[in-house]
Amino acid sequence: MSAFESFFLMKPDDVKRYVMEVVHHFPSDASLRCTEIGDGNINYVFRVEDVASGRSVVVKQSDKLLRSSGRPLDIGRSKIEARALMLEATLAPDYLPQVYHYDETMAAICMEDISAYQNLRKELLEGPVYSHLSDNLSSFLAQTLLPTTDLVMDRQEKKAAVKFFVNPELCDITEDLVLTEPYDDYKGRNVITPGNEAFVERFLYRNDELKAEIALLRDRFMNEAQALIHGDLHTGSIFVNASGMKVIDPEFAFYGPMGYDIGNVLGNLFFSWAHKAYVRPDEPTAALERLIAETYDMTRDKLKQTYDDTVTFPLYRVPAFQENYLAGVIADSLGYAGTEIIRRTVGDSKVMEVASVDDLDEKISMERALIKLGMSLIRQRAAIRRGDQLVDAFRLVMA
Amino acid sequence: MSAFESFFLMKPDDVKRYVMEVVHHFPSDASLRCTEIGDGNINYVFRVEDVASGRSVVVKQSDKLLRSSGRPLDIGRSKIEARALMLEATLAPDYLPQVYHYDETMAAICMEDISAYQNLRKELLEGPVYSHLSDNLSSFLAQTLLPTTDLVMDRQEKKAAVKFFVNPELCDITEDLVLTEPYDDYKGRNVITPGNEAFVERFLYRNDELKAEIALLRDRFMNEAQALIHGDLHTGSIFVNASGMKVIDPEFAFYGPMGYDIGNVLGNLFFSWAHKAYVRPDEPTAALERLIAETYDMTRDKLKQTYDDTVTFPLYRVPAFQENYLAGVIADSLGYAGTEIIRRTVGDSKVMEVASVDDLDEKISMERALIKLGMSLIRQRAAIRRGDQLVDAFRLVMA
Repeated sequence: MSAFESFFLMKPDDVKRYVMEVVHHFPSDASLRCTEIGDGNINYVFRVEDVASGRSVVVKQSDKLLRSSGRPLDIGRSKIEARALMLEATLAPDYLPQVYHYDETMAAICMEDISAYQNLRKELLEGPVYSHLSDNLSSFLAQTLLPTTDLVMDRQEKKAAVKFFVNPELCDITEDLVLTEPYDDYKGRNVITPGNEAFVERFLYRNDELKAEIALLRDRFMNEAQALIHGDLHTGSIFVNASGMKVIDPEFAFYGPMGYDIGNVLGNLFFSWAHKAYVRPDEPTAALERLIAETYDMTRDKLKQTYDDTVTFPLYRVPAFQENYLAGVIADSLGYAGTEIIRRTVGDSKVMEVASVDDLDEKISMERALIKLGMSLIRQRAAIRRGDQLVDAFRLVMA
Repeated sequence: MSAFESFFLMKPDDVKRYVMEVVHHFPSDASLRCTEIGDGNINYVFRVEDVASGRSVVVKQSDKLLRSSGRPLDIGRSKIEARALMLEATLAPDYLPQVYHYDETMAAICMEDISAYQNLRKELLEGPVYSHLSDNLSSFLAQTLLPTTDLVMDRQEKKAAVKFFVNPELCDITEDLVLTEPYDDYKGRNVITPGNEAFVERFLYRNDELKAEIALLRDRFMNEAQALIHGDLHTGSIFVNASGMKVIDPEFAFYGPMGYDIGNVLGNLFFSWAHKAYVRPDEPTAALERLIAETYDMTRDKLKQTYDDTVTFPLYRVPAFQENYLAGVIADSLGYAGTEIIRRTVGDSKVMEVASVDDLDEKISMERALIKLGMSLIRQRAAIRRGDQLVDAFRLVMA
């Protein structure tokens, strides 16, 4: 009887045996080295290397308890993550790690090791802005989103997918942390920088005009089963190097508005620009600005191209519908870019570009600019139609 | 071993034994009489009466084959119907038959006999227009729709309900027959009255402006998991008498836009008015017109009242969101009223108020007026705000 027939939390030695006995990825006489490399607060990630050949795999295991807080979390999320990784890999093979094995009992995914790629959040702050990045990001978005809608998919298969990917626990986190608490701190979890309390109070907590838009975006997130979305597509889920890009961690995947993924990407691209503008004003930001404008323009154009190439149902080929549909996706994208920017600034899950600022004056100014940018994107989400307008929106609030 | 441990299609004698042995509804020495009373084209409906007491129940059994065409259809629809009946009964107990027993194996629902009530479609054409009808219809809609949204329900329970009620086969029928074929007869099933071919060609098949709106309504129907809707709420699913109203047959139930149910009710109320206006011009129609205007106004007002009474989440209490949300529901309702009116006029599933017209000239004029009404409701769905405007819309196209 195998040791892996009922769930337990693996240690590195267990993972080595698991990869040999269950996954059969390496030769039976291989000598393996296993290190825990996870830095997330939810799961455990191990890298297993064949010492002789240098070949390696990653094993990601989900625990029944949240690693950070010990709160229980359904390990079914691992099943959703595995299936989303595999499905997205068929749609955008260049941008996903290959999954070698998924094991529901152990809640473990064995996949391609992508440690040749670097975390995009860190790269945008410290490393080069690769010129292929806007092309990669927009291709990933266009290739994974529209093809999972019922404009393209068989409608019975799409409904089965909607059913499979119902993901209450992870959606709950987004509905609270992203789409409620920054505007109504009912759980008392927001972390407001001293000096910004009155600003947040006035512009977020007591702003009914903004709240009406947030309620609309929250309602769409919860009800619009448009496409299979990654659900947590911030720059920490994206890895890059000089030759390409990989996207990981789709455990928040479910059928929702595709603008949520696009907006998460766009929103997160602003943080390094904001950081440099306020903390390191001598560093050039032109490449970051170009990245934002290009990612927006190329995503819009590739969605249109994918639509032209793959949507064949005559009613959906009517030009006025297509235009309306894609304009709606783009408006959603800017709305959710706005909610992402605001929640990473005032919510309890900060990004390092904001959290790492030590100078209080710089931090206060930067956070106010980000909040104003978020508000402006939400308010103008149906009006902004080009990438340069998106860049101008941030220049304007910084001026 | 019981005879009812695996599925078979029951005959009246089987139903009598079933009610005694499985449902235990009558005394063990009861003498029962059973008659098949179904006139639908999908299922079998039996009435079982205790000869001594006169007490009766109804047993509705689903077959694995469509009764009309012999096409296979998943009997899981019976499970959805039973659960929807029971759930709606907790929300609007006055308007649902009580379910006594549901049996997944036999795909049979044993429920209250509502034969004291008459089919609303026939009543509106031949009988009195009960003054309580607009109140009953609007109460049923307000009580069953908004409370199943995640504005009111716990969001985890709502997601579980969305998952349970995924209903691909029955939705398929609506997506084709209601939301595609009247505008694109790709299956060749439309039945166009001789003399109206060119009219239908011009205003429906070759009208891209209209088709863009239909595509939008179809996309919302397929993607907007807003509320648990009945899904087939035409006036043949509604039964009335001098004291009240009952709604049956929710086998099309799924999570969709609540305007679809409201629109089906409103749309179907026009057919008897149209019939009388074109075929029996001497008969008064004021009561029908009042019914339409009141049903619209009262549904809008009761939805608002239900919202005020039951939605407590602060973001959704922001007045501008509430207004926007309810305006969206009403706009959807008129849009789907339009698609229902058009599909019952040109599609393959006609209503008797249209199908029974013998005089070709009358029929041609009446059908053109109905198609124009449907188009006008779809086009003006965001602009019509009062019941009298809805009535005027039909007066205008008839003029």
